[in-house]
Amino acid sequence: MIVVMDKDSGDDEIAQVVKRLEAAGLKGHLSKGVERTVIGVVGVATGLPELRESLALMPGVENVVPISKPYKLSSREFKAEDTVIEVGGVSIGGDQVVVMAGPCAVESEEQVMSTARAVKAAGASVLRGGAFKPSTSPYSFRGLGEEGLKILAHAKAETGLPLVTEVLTPGDVELVARYADILQVGARNMQNFILLDEVGKAGKPVLLKRGMSATIQEWLLAVEYVLSQGNRQVVLCERGIRTFETHTRNTLDVSAVPSIQKLSHLPIIADPSHGTGRWELVTPMALASVAAGAHGLLIEVHPTPDTALKDGAQSLTFAHFDELMARLAPVAAAVGRRLALKGA
Amino acid sequence: MIVVMDKDSGDDEIAQVVKRLEAAGLKGHLSKGVERTVIGVVGVATGLPELRESLALMPGVENVVPISKPYKLSSREFKAEDTVIEVGGVSIGGDQVVVMAGPCAVESEEQVMSTARAVKAAGASVLRGGAFKPSTSPYSFRGLGEEGLKILAHAKAETGLPLVTEVLTPGDVELVARYADILQVGARNMQNFILLDEVGKAGKPVLLKRGMSATIQEWLLAVEYVLSQGNRQVVLCERGIRTFETHTRNTLDVSAVPSIQKLSHLPIIADPSHGTGRWELVTPMALASVAAGAHGLLIEVHPTPDTALKDGAQSLTFAHFDELMARLAPVAAAVGRRLALKGA
Amino acid sequence: MIVVMDKDSGDDEIAQVVKRLEAAGLKGHLSKGVERTVIGVVGVATGLPELRESLALMPGVENVVPISKPYKLSSREFKAEDTVIEVGGVSIGGDQVVVMAGPCAVESEEQVMSTARAVKAAGASVLRGGAFKPSTSPYSFRGLGEEGLKILAHAKAETGLPLVTEVLTPGDVELVARYADILQVGARNMQNFILLDEVGKAGKPVLLKRGMSATIQEWLLAVEYVLSQGNRQVVLCERGIRTFETHTRNTLDVSAVPSIQKLSHLPIIADPSHGTGRWELVTPMALASVAAGAHGLLIEVHPTPDTALKDGAQSLTFAHFDELMARLAPVAAAVGRRLALKGA
Amino acid sequence: MIVVMDKDSGDDEIAQVVKRLEAAGLKGHLSKGVERTVIGVVGVATGLPELRESLALMPGVENVVPISKPYKLSSREFKAEDTVIEVGGVSIGGDQVVVMAGPCAVESEEQVMSTARAVKAAGASVLRGGAFKPSTSPYSFRGLGEEGLKILAHAKAETGLPLVTEVLTPGDVELVARYADILQVGARNMQNFILLDEVGKAGKPVLLKRGMSATIQEWLLAVEYVLSQGNRQVVLCERGIRTFETHTRNTLDVSAVPSIQKLSHLPIIADPSHGTGRWELVTPMALASVAAGAHGLLIEVHPTPDTALKDGAQSLTFAHFDELMARLAPVAAAVGRRLALKGA
Repeated sequence: MIVVMDKDSGDDEIAQVVKRLEAAGLKGHLSKGVERTVIGVVGVATGLPELRESLALMPGVENVVPISKPYKLSSREFKAEDTVIEVGGVSIGGDQVVVMAGPCAVESEEQVMSTARAVKAAGASVLRGGAFKPSTSPYSFRGLGEEGLKILAHAKAETGLPLVTEVLTPGDVELVARYADILQVGARNMQNFILLDEVGKAGKPVLLKRGMSATIQEWLLAVEYVLSQGNRQVVLCERGIRTFETHTRNTLDVSAVPSIQKLSHLPIIADPSHGTGRWELVTPMALASVAAGAHGLLIEVHPTPDTALKDGAQSLTFAHFDELMARLAPVAAAVGRRLALKGA
Repeated sequence: MIVVMDKDSGDDEIAQVVKRLEAAGLKGHLSKGVERTVIGVVGVATGLPELRESLALMPGVENVVPISKPYKLSSREFKAEDTVIEVGGVSIGGDQVVVMAGPCAVESEEQVMSTARAVKAAGASVLRGGAFKPSTSPYSFRGLGEEGLKILAHAKAETGLPLVTEVLTPGDVELVARYADILQVGARNMQNFILLDEVGKAGKPVLLKRGMSATIQEWLLAVEYVLSQGNRQVVLCERGIRTFETHTRNTLDVSAVPSIQKLSHLPIIADPSHGTGRWELVTPMALASVAAGAHGLLIEVHPTPDTALKDGAQSLTFAHFDELMARLAPVAAAVGRRLALKGA
Repeated sequence: MIVVMDKDSGDDEIAQVVKRLEAAGLKGHLSKGVERTVIGVVGVATGLPELRESLALMPGVENVVPISKPYKLSSREFKAEDTVIEVGGVSIGGDQVVVMAGPCAVESEEQVMSTARAVKAAGASVLRGGAFKPSTSPYSFRGLGEEGLKILAHAKAETGLPLVTEVLTPGDVELVARYADILQVGARNMQNFILLDEVGKAGKPVLLKRGMSATIQEWLLAVEYVLSQGNRQVVLCERGIRTFETHTRNTLDVSAVPSIQKLSHLPIIADPSHGTGRWELVTPMALASVAAGAHGLLIEVHPTPDTALKDGAQSLTFAHFDELMARLAPVAAAVGRRLALKGA
Repeated sequence: MIVVMDKDSGDDEIAQVVKRLEAAGLKGHLSKGVERTVIGVVGVATGLPELRESLALMPGVENVVPISKPYKLSSREFKAEDTVIEVGGVSIGGDQVVVMAGPCAVESEEQVMSTARAVKAAGASVLRGGAFKPSTSPYSFRGLGEEGLKILAHAKAETGLPLVTEVLTPGDVELVARYADILQVGARNMQNFILLDEVGKAGKPVLLKRGMSATIQEWLLAVEYVLSQGNRQVVLCERGIRTFETHTRNTLDVSAVPSIQKLSHLPIIADPSHGTGRWELVTPMALASVAAGAHGLLIEVHPTPDTALKDGAQSLTFAHFDELMARLAPVAAAVGRRLALKGA
């Protein structure tokens, strides 16, 4: 942390800042420049946002510049080697590309079973599907609840595919964790801190989607909530950010993939379905994400997208998903990766 | 809802769309143009997003344009006259400007009591203060919990000011509702739908902040969650949206005030403290919000902002708050409003 | 400027940075912390962006933090007192609120004359109107060119109102400057640096609109182009920034008004017509802007907005403009300002 | 175009709208719904934005929804097959991936010559480099001007690589066109319409970068300016859009690549150097762009990025560029493309 003094700050104001730092157990190193003085802060407590705001308000202080990153357990500096998460025979975070596929929302036994079989046959290694659905409008479909979880369990039993499914609220964590192999926290809940605490205690891997207007730093701080509860198994998922562009539902920030890999040791996957909102863009953006280094993909697949209760416009048919997987394999190979194969 | 067909769509594709509409209990009116055919959809179910997505995927369809607004109970079309909410002797939504003021976070009995007295003396009519605090980092202060609520209750008992305080999670709604006169749902929870359901059932007025990347339509849909539980007492609060600008913490969207007043019958207030993140901008933006028609303000005040545990940089001192109130009265008068006076 | 070294940077890397600074005529002050070393840079050349980028690439350097503001002539530090610009008997930047009103585009002699008379009668003190129009589509109206300027000159001759009108390209600066009292540079040209150079040389006051995705710092740097040509008469105009919100055409950043006033000595006005894109929001946002401290307003007025060739949806009728002015006077008074009166 | 009437609009208001349409040579088809009437507009003039705004202001009209796309010559509907542009023996827009590489700014003969040789050896097929540089600050380097163009011409003569270089202002188009094989229009000038007119007349291929806050539709309308002057050789270049994220300089919108390919017949390339602002992200984002279908790349390469006068932080060294090209070839092959080879 560095304290930048006003051009016309006086010696007493500088002395007050130094005194304040010392009261917090820190030291201040002065650099007197031609135009102004800056004070380098030295000590272990320098990351505290409260102290930073407080210093910024002292007389003679122009602003305070943070130097240390505020996240710790998720950072590369804390752990240099990649974290690899094992779930149901699948490794996420290594040299495999893990494709998680299935319907946006669980609608019926038949819909889920046929989709699970189709995506497994095409090479997916995790089954996705939502039993509890966040919906912008209270008048839209909100999911089948536990009945939906049971349908997913049935599909898992038949296909052997591990399950990723969303949990919306702390009170449901225990229930969802009984069925899910990976607990998904959605974009709208990225800063639902009580929920993050709870999934941090649940002892299951967590897939944490980026909030639609979250910076990379805020996202890693949300991860930090889970990690600081003792759960070190977090997969990040880029799912598009909100911008001014209206052609796509969101703007998939593909550069978040290599950025996260530089800043953190945790695996990162991409969701081109929500990231674009248009099925015809899903395959090119899936290829792009893997070329940029993504450890996996989250893809919406539906037997009949035009009758889907949710997100039909961004869901692939079985045939389109087959085509995606066929085109994905050579791209993965071109960047030194291979598709994960369940049971292989 | 209007279905726009491709330029080269055929009669059979048009017929399929009409058939699909009829299956949903609707009718389609054809308009054959020089370039393309459009189908006007008539009937009561036309607002369903699922049907819209599904139509958009049919062969020959270029896109589907929604016409009706998806929110209902919150709309001016549903209720033409302004909703006025009475809470602890204060009217929100009429011709008074209601100033809600207090510390961001409850830190101590002394801090809250001195602030409550100061803001009451300056003309505030509601006391704000957080006992449960959302915090971007797990390593920051997260609030005193129920102990904080008790401190607020004490301040209410002494000053007579009703309380607005935040609830973070469904499991705390009952507890917080025992102390609060208005339940606040924060920006990060605007789409925490389970929480919205619960505050909708709690029987207390709700103050719903705009999500930091929420459109006005999404905000009104979040309101709709509360209203559809039978609770019609919702105050909206504009608190700044996320943009590319970094000089301010957020960009306070003052135009949301008159926009909401056109679209909805519910009261709307502004929070220039979070909306700017800089105390020196709070007063000008408070004046601007009231000039634009806001029914009230939410202002952070702290006895010593430079030692605040949270949001010191955007908190006013007592002296600055006095000045704000002195400058606010003539602006309110200039737009035909007057400051609400508790007990007056 | 401060150079932050990597946690594991070595003494030789630090020495290299110091050597590089000395080669640029600067000095480096070391602060060795518990976690890392930071180097405070002292000297007069510290603002150079090239040097900053170059240091950021040196081995062992984590990042480089600028301290000084990159704009100079426009800053409050350079000139503490407000700049007041006199044009055609009107003072911009003092305690008057200067209303500039007129049609978006000059369409005909009759349209301009009737509008000029109407806005003068209502209390406007500058006439606006575009003869050269930027248009998103090449198939839309692009303005009458010099014929439009002659119509504006006629209106000025009759009413005595000074003129503000846009110049689109360096080749037109001389022509437009023959007619205009204030040269307007539009949002799309805020970073048309060659045009900024030219208007800087033209010897006429310049009204520089904020680019639709320009930060406040970039805007002040664009101002700096004009000032550094020797022209110190620049009025800034906030006209809305691009955000994700679609209800309004742009989001009028009212907080830019007090922010600019803190950072710069130059006058700032607001354009609620482009800032909202909806005529019904123009008056509330005009009031908000003046309450926040704006030195003036730019308002689109048209005799018959529903037949306007450009921006009808955001233009006020004469009656609506009369109402705006009637409501504006008390708000201006409430913040210690008064409406400028041409010839008064 | 569809006119949506208010819920409570009357028959006379509907009749007025129909009359207005007929006056413009159009027809209105009524659809009377349960809640409201919509009027489908039929005829050839329906794309006019002026008429649309004007209708929106008529009594009883709620809003007006455009149906036709406002761009024409650039659309797939106008021309179904891909446009392939031949320049200096290189084909842009077919199955080759064209890599355009070189320094951001021309600094010296030696810098350009060594870079030109290095990028040619690594497989680039076009040389880039700026002689006229837009710069946010007037105090930064603005380019060598014609001297820079001569240096580029020398490099072209030796290596045989065609040149792409930026033109900033209409007055320079003729000069730059004497040296350049492709005229580049930068992001800040995407809506400099006079410049677009001029490059449209210059008879040389144009590379048009996306504005930093331009929607895809606005970008295609800017293209339309060039095409409507008779110049059909336009290459689009995605270079990152402005978002709230600060980790990267811009957010490279990779999904613009397949989106443009669906909407338009023109070639599209990506600029991961400006798109990220960080050299370490350039290679992963180059791979991503090609995997998503880009016809080419624009890459900044510099012999010694840490002494570059401009954009050093995002420039690759020769060694890093070699590595990029080595990793690019298999990705291009994986999506059925091959690297363009100059002279091959």
